[in-house]
Amino acid sequence: MSTQEVLERLVFNSEGLLPAIIQDDDSGDVLMLAWMDREAIRRTLTTGRVTFWSRSRQEYWRKGDTSGHRQYVRGVAVDCDDDTLLVRVVQLGAACHTGTRTCFEGREVAAQRGEVEH
Amino acid sequence: MSTQEVLERLVFNSEGLLPAIIQDDDSGDVLMLAWMDREAIRRTLTTGRVTFWSRSRQEYWRKGDTSGHRQYVRGVAVDCDDDTLLVRVVQLGAACHTGTRTCFEGREVAAQRGEVEH
Repeated sequence: MSTQEVLERLVFNSEGLLPAIIQDDDSGDVLMLAWMDREAIRRTLTTGRVTFWSRSRQEYWRKGDTSGHRQYVRGVAVDCDDDTLLVRVVQLGAACHTGTRTCFEGREVAAQRGEVEH
Repeated sequence: MSTQEVLERLVFNSEGLLPAIIQDDDSGDVLMLAWMDREAIRRTLTTGRVTFWSRSRQEYWRKGDTSGHRQYVRGVAVDCDDDTLLVRVVQLGAACHTGTRTCFEGREVAAQRGEVEH
């Protein structure tokens, strides 16, 4: 799909945003989830640098411009109902603002393991 | 974190939902993203079977009850700002209702690769 086709078919929420899952292209680790509007997606698809819309700061946020922890695009896919993006990246340094590699590191919660029944 | 602590600290959107990223625990593939409310999370954490809230059908949806494509919990983590879950699972069959293994399979979009500058 071309950039224009993608931008036209995407389904945004009532705030004009959709969630983007950011995955480390080398390790497969899920690094973070953040939000993009149409313009953030256009920038991400056309510049090779991951760009979000910051809901708290109400501004575009090109990941790493302040921290140096840049995300370079390796591939982008849209899900079956066109309302979620999966962005595979090369991550420099820490993806999380807390300094950990991913936003989920050290944040495991107690959960019952399911017994697989085939 | 205990189940009760997790349920109390989570941050839901205005619809009382948060996004859950579902990842294959073996391959690391991101299978899908779906939405959970507090009760769906409680069921997921305590039963070992991934349970969502279906926004379109307005009902709880224990993944695989109709299709057989069940998701068994292997681990759950919450992100740094307590508004996204990452659920690692054993996936039986296809995660996607279209029959593909993941909801992103065959859905790659044109994207500029970023030139990594260190």
